[in-house]
Amino acid sequence: MSQIKTPVKGMCDFTPEDMVLRNYVTDKIKGVYGKFGFTQIETPAVEHIENLTGNHGGENEKLIFKILKRGEKLKESQDIATACDCGLRYDLTLPLSRFYANNADNLYSPFKAFQIGNVWRADRPQKGRFRQFCQCDIDILGDDSILAETELITATAALLLELGFKNFTVRINDRAILKETAAQSGIPEDLTAGAFISLDKLDKIGEEGVKEELIAQGISGQAAERFLQNNKNAQPCQNIIDIQKNVKAAGCEGFKIEFDPTLVRGMGYYTGTIFEITMEELGLSVAGGGRYDKMIGSFSGANTPACGFSIGFERIITILKDRRFKVPSQGEKIAFLIDKKAENDKIAQALCDAAKLRSVGKTVMVTKKNKNAKFQKENLSAIGYTEFKEIY
Amino acid sequence: MSQIKTPVKGMCDFTPEDMVLRNYVTDKIKGVYGKFGFTQIETPAVEHIENLTGNHGGENEKLIFKILKRGEKLKESQDIATACDCGLRYDLTLPLSRFYANNADNLYSPFKAFQIGNVWRADRPQKGRFRQFCQCDIDILGDDSILAETELITATAALLLELGFKNFTVRINDRAILKETAAQSGIPEDLTAGAFISLDKLDKIGEEGVKEELIAQGISGQAAERFLQNNKNAQPCQNIIDIQKNVKAAGCEGFKIEFDPTLVRGMGYYTGTIFEITMEELGLSVAGGGRYDKMIGSFSGANTPACGFSIGFERIITILKDRRFKVPSQGEKIAFLIDKKAENDKIAQALCDAAKLRSVGKTVMVTKKNKNAKFQKENLSAIGYTEFKEIY
Repeated sequence: MSQIKTPVKGMCDFTPEDMVLRNYVTDKIKGVYGKFGFTQIETPAVEHIENLTGNHGGENEKLIFKILKRGEKLKESQDIATACDCGLRYDLTLPLSRFYANNADNLYSPFKAFQIGNVWRADRPQKGRFRQFCQCDIDILGDDSILAETELITATAALLLELGFKNFTVRINDRAILKETAAQSGIPEDLTAGAFISLDKLDKIGEEGVKEELIAQGISGQAAERFLQNNKNAQPCQNIIDIQKNVKAAGCEGFKIEFDPTLVRGMGYYTGTIFEITMEELGLSVAGGGRYDKMIGSFSGANTPACGFSIGFERIITILKDRRFKVPSQGEKIAFLIDKKAENDKIAQALCDAAKLRSVGKTVMVTKKNKNAKFQKENLSAIGYTEFKEIY
Repeated sequence: MSQIKTPVKGMCDFTPEDMVLRNYVTDKIKGVYGKFGFTQIETPAVEHIENLTGNHGGENEKLIFKILKRGEKLKESQDIATACDCGLRYDLTLPLSRFYANNADNLYSPFKAFQIGNVWRADRPQKGRFRQFCQCDIDILGDDSILAETELITATAALLLELGFKNFTVRINDRAILKETAAQSGIPEDLTAGAFISLDKLDKIGEEGVKEELIAQGISGQAAERFLQNNKNAQPCQNIIDIQKNVKAAGCEGFKIEFDPTLVRGMGYYTGTIFEITMEELGLSVAGGGRYDKMIGSFSGANTPACGFSIGFERIITILKDRRFKVPSQGEKIAFLIDKKAENDKIAQALCDAAKLRSVGKTVMVTKKNKNAKFQKENLSAIGYTEFKEIY
């Protein structure tokens, strides 16, 4: 078989230039979340197929990269349907729940987890949407109080401010408000999940569009209208008011936190508060999360309150790239270009000099001088080299 | 299906304590390799099945985690054998070669690549060997001179010294010496690959053991004996002598660099110098590499000289853990424990105080106070918290 030099469809190679920006953002994330006392964990990229298809992932379960069994177990498989025993994780929340159920005895409580890692979804590739992409989540497990929401929102807002973002809005709602509104409007309980998914499209398809969808789902026109009206008039419950107060008390400035009764968040596992961060200027969501008090219990048998917030790492990278954001320089960079006819003792001296310069914090690249040294210097200048020394 | 709380067989969950050590080592790697002018790249975890099974991976090709096709393409597959279009990468060298072939036009040359990332091998799980593990490679592409070997060895040695390792030995050999010795000893060319694999076991099975294996492969007893004798008397070629001189000239102290004619390195793709770093005290190899001038050409059609050095990240972590290495403290850590009856204005004040302390570089965890606050404080002390403030 011939070799293919492009990456697998929908996945990316990252060049040194890409990595400088990605590392800059990663370091900021580690710095800010670390200061808030979130502690990093890591789980394998590969998860049991039973967990991945356990109804926690909603639409994502249709997008799993499934991995074949190996050896004897593969031979025993009758057909393709039974030939997989694991797959690539589609998010970081499911693995975190498994991790916590497996390790809770050795973790402090409430546990404040921070994760940064790749996830995989066999989505239709399109601009800005990849099949391997980085997610960055913080979660608080074992705290049923609104302190969890407060810390998650404050930390995420602090991170975005640290990355230079301003004028963003944290929108917050509670699934309980949505449910109550639906019940009051006469929407049958078995149709509420679908009704929420339609409501979520309000800013895209408008009131008439949502109403049409609700009716198509079997909801009466009257109930649909009432639902839209009641939703518009919904008032924040006390926990939302308290979270807003708390977040403001933490004193970060440069963003708003607003109650938004139309906020739904797609994932079925949310059980209480839900929140999202929108960038005004872009009309884009850059972070989303909420409370999911039932998921860990499905692994451990013991219910554990849980609340999380996930930032869209790739989206943040895209915005910074679009803004032509420049990562601050990392100190002096010097290149020693060694001519192919250089004498041995000159090379030895150069190597020794390079070691000394590195020991005082400078970056020194010792490399072969190309025939076209001018072009070589231009390329090295582009990645931050300001000083060149040719060795003959 | 029921949910499984343990990780997939042979793969690991990393706790916050694990991650502190892993991040410490990762940061040292980035720091040292960065100072040598290596520039980081990243490739997807998933590679084309054609590349993974293209005869670059030796035994590793038997250990691939293969990924099922999706959607219509899966339905078109006749059987399991044709049902996969990609798989998880088993090393970082093959993806680097693909990356370089794909991106060379936009990269400086010689290109000094640095990679740190997970690889997957469906190996039999055993102590210290995992099915997902981290590799860390540096490679120089486009330099056919011994400057490449010199910089790779100097940088890797500098990293190990920075991590506190001492008294290690860089062993170096050249595939050309092995080939010449085999030819001089009368070993038929088609049996040399197998002969090298047996020679590689010299320190484990001794001369008699190697001889037996050589004979079993169809080599005459006389040729086998001559091969062992000639190998023992082999002399370093000029490039090895020059690399040794260069590495010493760079002035790093605390390790040896020695010619070792019995060094083989398993991978079939090596074309010239090969090298390995052994820890005297442990009798373990912690890094290995060599020159592979033919691999990139198999992707791009244009031959490109290439040389790389890979450190065993997981092995280094294991050694540091065994030595009970303590990561230096990362600054002051304070925990605010909020009583569930705390008044709102007290909470607001605590959140405000926390923000101020963070702004001067301190880590502040604001968290719910547990019923057993003594146990909670003990657990937080274990992860570095030295100051506690209870908020009522």
